[in-house]
Amino acid sequence: MVEPSKVVGLISDFGDSPYTGIMRAVIKSISRELQIIDIDHSIPSFSPLAGAYVVAHTYQWLPKGSVIVAVVDPGVGTSRYALAVETENYVFIGPDNGVLYPAAASDGIKRVYALREKDVNSLARMKTSSTAGTVKPWSISRTFHGRDVFAPAGALIAAGHASLEELGDEIEPERMKRTSIDHVEKLGPSTFRATVVYIDKFGNVALSIRPKKLGINLSLYKSVVLRTHTTSNTIKMGKTFGDANPGELVAYENSFGHLEIAVNRGNAAKKLGLELEARVEIELLENSGPVPNGSRGMRNADLLGVSSRSLGETIW
Amino acid sequence: MVEPSKVVGLISDFGDSPYTGIMRAVIKSISRELQIIDIDHSIPSFSPLAGAYVVAHTYQWLPKGSVIVAVVDPGVGTSRYALAVETENYVFIGPDNGVLYPAAASDGIKRVYALREKDVNSLARMKTSSTAGTVKPWSISRTFHGRDVFAPAGALIAAGHASLEELGDEIEPERMKRTSIDHVEKLGPSTFRATVVYIDKFGNVALSIRPKKLGINLSLYKSVVLRTHTTSNTIKMGKTFGDANPGELVAYENSFGHLEIAVNRGNAAKKLGLELEARVEIELLENSGPVPNGSRGMRNADLLGVSSRSLGETIW
Amino acid sequence: MVEPSKVVGLISDFGDSPYTGIMRAVIKSISRELQIIDIDHSIPSFSPLAGAYVVAHTYQWLPKGSVIVAVVDPGVGTSRYALAVETENYVFIGPDNGVLYPAAASDGIKRVYALREKDVNSLARMKTSSTAGTVKPWSISRTFHGRDVFAPAGALIAAGHASLEELGDEIEPERMKRTSIDHVEKLGPSTFRATVVYIDKFGNVALSIRPKKLGINLSLYKSVVLRTHTTSNTIKMGKTFGDANPGELVAYENSFGHLEIAVNRGNAAKKLGLELEARVEIELLENSGPVPNGSRGMRNADLLGVSSRSLGETIW
Repeated sequence: MVEPSKVVGLISDFGDSPYTGIMRAVIKSISRELQIIDIDHSIPSFSPLAGAYVVAHTYQWLPKGSVIVAVVDPGVGTSRYALAVETENYVFIGPDNGVLYPAAASDGIKRVYALREKDVNSLARMKTSSTAGTVKPWSISRTFHGRDVFAPAGALIAAGHASLEELGDEIEPERMKRTSIDHVEKLGPSTFRATVVYIDKFGNVALSIRPKKLGINLSLYKSVVLRTHTTSNTIKMGKTFGDANPGELVAYENSFGHLEIAVNRGNAAKKLGLELEARVEIELLENSGPVPNGSRGMRNADLLGVSSRSLGETIW
Repeated sequence: MVEPSKVVGLISDFGDSPYTGIMRAVIKSISRELQIIDIDHSIPSFSPLAGAYVVAHTYQWLPKGSVIVAVVDPGVGTSRYALAVETENYVFIGPDNGVLYPAAASDGIKRVYALREKDVNSLARMKTSSTAGTVKPWSISRTFHGRDVFAPAGALIAAGHASLEELGDEIEPERMKRTSIDHVEKLGPSTFRATVVYIDKFGNVALSIRPKKLGINLSLYKSVVLRTHTTSNTIKMGKTFGDANPGELVAYENSFGHLEIAVNRGNAAKKLGLELEARVEIELLENSGPVPNGSRGMRNADLLGVSSRSLGETIW
Repeated sequence: MVEPSKVVGLISDFGDSPYTGIMRAVIKSISRELQIIDIDHSIPSFSPLAGAYVVAHTYQWLPKGSVIVAVVDPGVGTSRYALAVETENYVFIGPDNGVLYPAAASDGIKRVYALREKDVNSLARMKTSSTAGTVKPWSISRTFHGRDVFAPAGALIAAGHASLEELGDEIEPERMKRTSIDHVEKLGPSTFRATVVYIDKFGNVALSIRPKKLGINLSLYKSVVLRTHTTSNTIKMGKTFGDANPGELVAYENSFGHLEIAVNRGNAAKKLGLELEARVEIELLENSGPVPNGSRGMRNADLLGVSSRSLGETIW
C-alpha cells in the first residue's frame, strides 16, 4: 500500500448537516493527526451515478496515500457490502453500489475488501473510548453507516491503526458493483446516445460523452443537436460558457473532460428540462446547424427507441 | 476542567456564509494551533429547539476536552445571557435560549457561567491585535455575537488563554433556560403526544419520542398511527427507510435514538405537511393497522386538545 | 511582504460542490502544512459586487500574512487578468473584475501582479507531480481557473514556494478593475441614492450606505424611508432585528458597518422585492415618520432619475 498521507477526503449526500459533522468528529476522535478535506457533500440524494462522477473527477487532486470516504448510500441498512478498495495511489471506502467503481478503476484496482462492519465498529469504539465522549454503547445503527462504519474505517486506515486485512475480507474485484460515467452508444458517425451524469449547482449538464476518450476532436464541430424524446435543440459549440451570449445555450468540453451543456449566466438543466440520469441523443455538426427550434426534430419516442436499439453500437 | 483538546466544534444557523467564515477566522487568529470542526451550520433559523437536538446528538463524538460553540441566537442584541457551561467532558458556549441545555445536561453540568461579553471581547482583541488585521476598533456589535463574543470565548478557552472564571460570572445552573428534545405526554398505554424536534435535509421527521428512554421495545410493534389536528396516517414500522417501498412512509428508531418518520427516497415532512415544533399524536400498534387513509381518524381539534389535557401524563 | 501565515482563506460562488473540494485538495497537494479557512462559498453566482462586499468584510479577521483566494469569475476563459495583489497585511488572488478591489484598497495596495497563468500552472504541476495523483496532463481548462490558476497561485505563495514576481508581471495598480461597496449619491441633507450590495441568507438587505464613513450619527434618526421606483416604506430605526416585532421591518447599522434592512424573524428582501444591485433611495427621518404605507411616496420613475442626476453629489 502507498504511504498513508494522513488525509481523509469526504464525499457524501449529507449536505451541511449533523451527519457530516459527526463523520468529521468521529475521524478526529480516532486520530487527532488526521487532516480532513471536505470534497463535496452536495451529491444528489440517492444517486450513486452522480456520486461516481464526483469521486472519479476529484480523488486525483488529493495527496497520494489519502483515503477517500464516499457515503452515497440509499441502501443503508439493507444487504450490500461496505467496501474498502485499495488502488495504485489511494484507498476508497464506501457502499458497494457503484459510487466507487469509476474512480477506483481509473486509478487501478489492486485489492477489494468487504468490510466486516462489526469489527470496524468495535475497533473504532476501542480507539475512541478514552478520547471521545461517544455514546455508550456505540453499535451499528441501521441508518447511519457514515458514522458507524465508513468514517471509522477511513480514519482507522488513514491513521495506520488498522490494515485493510484487519477490517475486511478480500473479495474478487469482479464482484464490485459497476457504474459507468462515460458509457455511450454510437448511433451513427457523429451521433451518440448518452446519459446525463451530473448537473452542477449552476445547472450545467454534464453528459457521459468524453470526446478525447472517443477520439473526437471537438474543435472540428461547430454545433451539436441535443434530442430528448420530446425536444430537439441545436446548440453552438464553444470553449466556455462565456462564448455564448447571456441566456444562450452553449456546449463545450468541461474541466473534467466531459461534453457539457450550459447557459451563459443561466441554468441549462431547467431550460432544457433535463434531470440526472436522463437519456439524450447528441449529434455533432460540422456547421452551425439549422436555426435552433424547440419543436422541430421531434420524433416518435418509440421509433427513437427502436432505432437506437437497432443502430446502437456500444463503444465503451 | 477536563484537559483541553484544542478542538472547537462549531454549530450555527449561519449556513455557508461570511458569518461562518468570520467565526473560523477569528478562532484561528486567536490561536493557530486550534482545530476547528464544523459540526452543522444548517440549523433552521430561529429554532433553538432544533439547535438543541443537533448539539445533543453530536457533541459526544468530539474529542473530550473540546469546546462546542453553538450560535442559534434569534435574540442577539437583546437581553439574554451568553453562557459558558462546563460539563463532565466538554465546555459548551452559546446563548441562553435552551440550545445548550439538553446536551449539557446529558453530559453532566458542573458549572455555568454568564459571560462578561466586554471582557471576552477585549481579551480577544488583545490576543489578535498583533496576529490579525482585525478592524479597529473591534467592539461588540448588536447583531453578530458569533464573531464578537461566542467564537472568541470558545477560542480563548480552547487555547487555554483564559479560564471560565476570567471570562464570566458563575451562576446557578438552575437559572439556565431549559428546552427538552424528548418531552412526551402519555395519553394511553401506547399513545403519546409528541413534538417534531428536527427535520433533516432528506425531510425525515424526528419526534420527541425516544423509545429506549420510555422503556418501549419498538420491535413489538408493527405500525404507528400518526395524527395531527387534520390528518391521520397509519405507518409501517421498520428498521430503516429501505424497509419501505420507494415513496412509502416508514417509522423507525433513528441513529440518534428518536422515533422518526421517513419516506423511502422521498420527503416525509412535505408528504405529511409537518413543520418543526409541530405537535403530533402517536399510537403504537402491535398489528399492521387499518389501511392507511389520509382522512379517517380526524378529530375535532379542540376535543383533541381537551382529551390530551385530561388524559395527559407527563412522563419526562 | 508580511511574514506568510501559511493560511489560505477561500471565497467563491461554488457552494458545496466538487469545485470547492478540488480547490482544497489542490492546495493540500501543493503543501500539506497549509491551513485552509473556508470563508464563504455562497457568493451569488455572477456577482463580483456581492463578492467584493464579502471579501472586504471578512479578510481582516484572518491572521496577517494569509492569502485570500476569491473565485467569483463569470468571465472565466475570456480575456481578463488573473490578479495577485499584495497589500499591507495580506495577499489577494482572484480575477480582475472588481471582486478584490474594495478589500485590497482598504488594507492598502502595495503591488499588483497580472499572473502568468501558464507559469502558475506548470509550477503547481511540478510541485504536485510527486505528491498527488493529479491528472496527466494538467493544463489550464477554459472553465475552472479556481483549480488551474487561483488555488495553485494561492498555495504556492502561502507556502513560500514562489514569490509574486515569479508568478506574475507587475502592473500599475490603477489598471485594476474597481468596484465600490459604499458608493452613494447625496440627493439632499439626509437623502441618499444607494445600491443593494448584499443580501444574506436571512434575507437581510445591506445597502452601500456606511453611516460612520458619511459622518452620520444614526442614533439621531428614528426611521428611514426606503423608496424604489414603485414602492415606499417607512421603516423604524433600531439597533438589531430584535428591536422590531416579529414580521416587522427594521433598519440598523449591521455588523459590517452598513445600513441594513431586515424583518425580525422574516425575509426583508422578499418582503420588499429587492434584489442584489438594485438601486434605492433612502431618507433618514428624525421622527418616526408617517404611517408606513406601501403606496404613498411613489414618484414618477423618470422624474426620480432626473432629480437624482440634478441633485446628485457623489460623496465617495
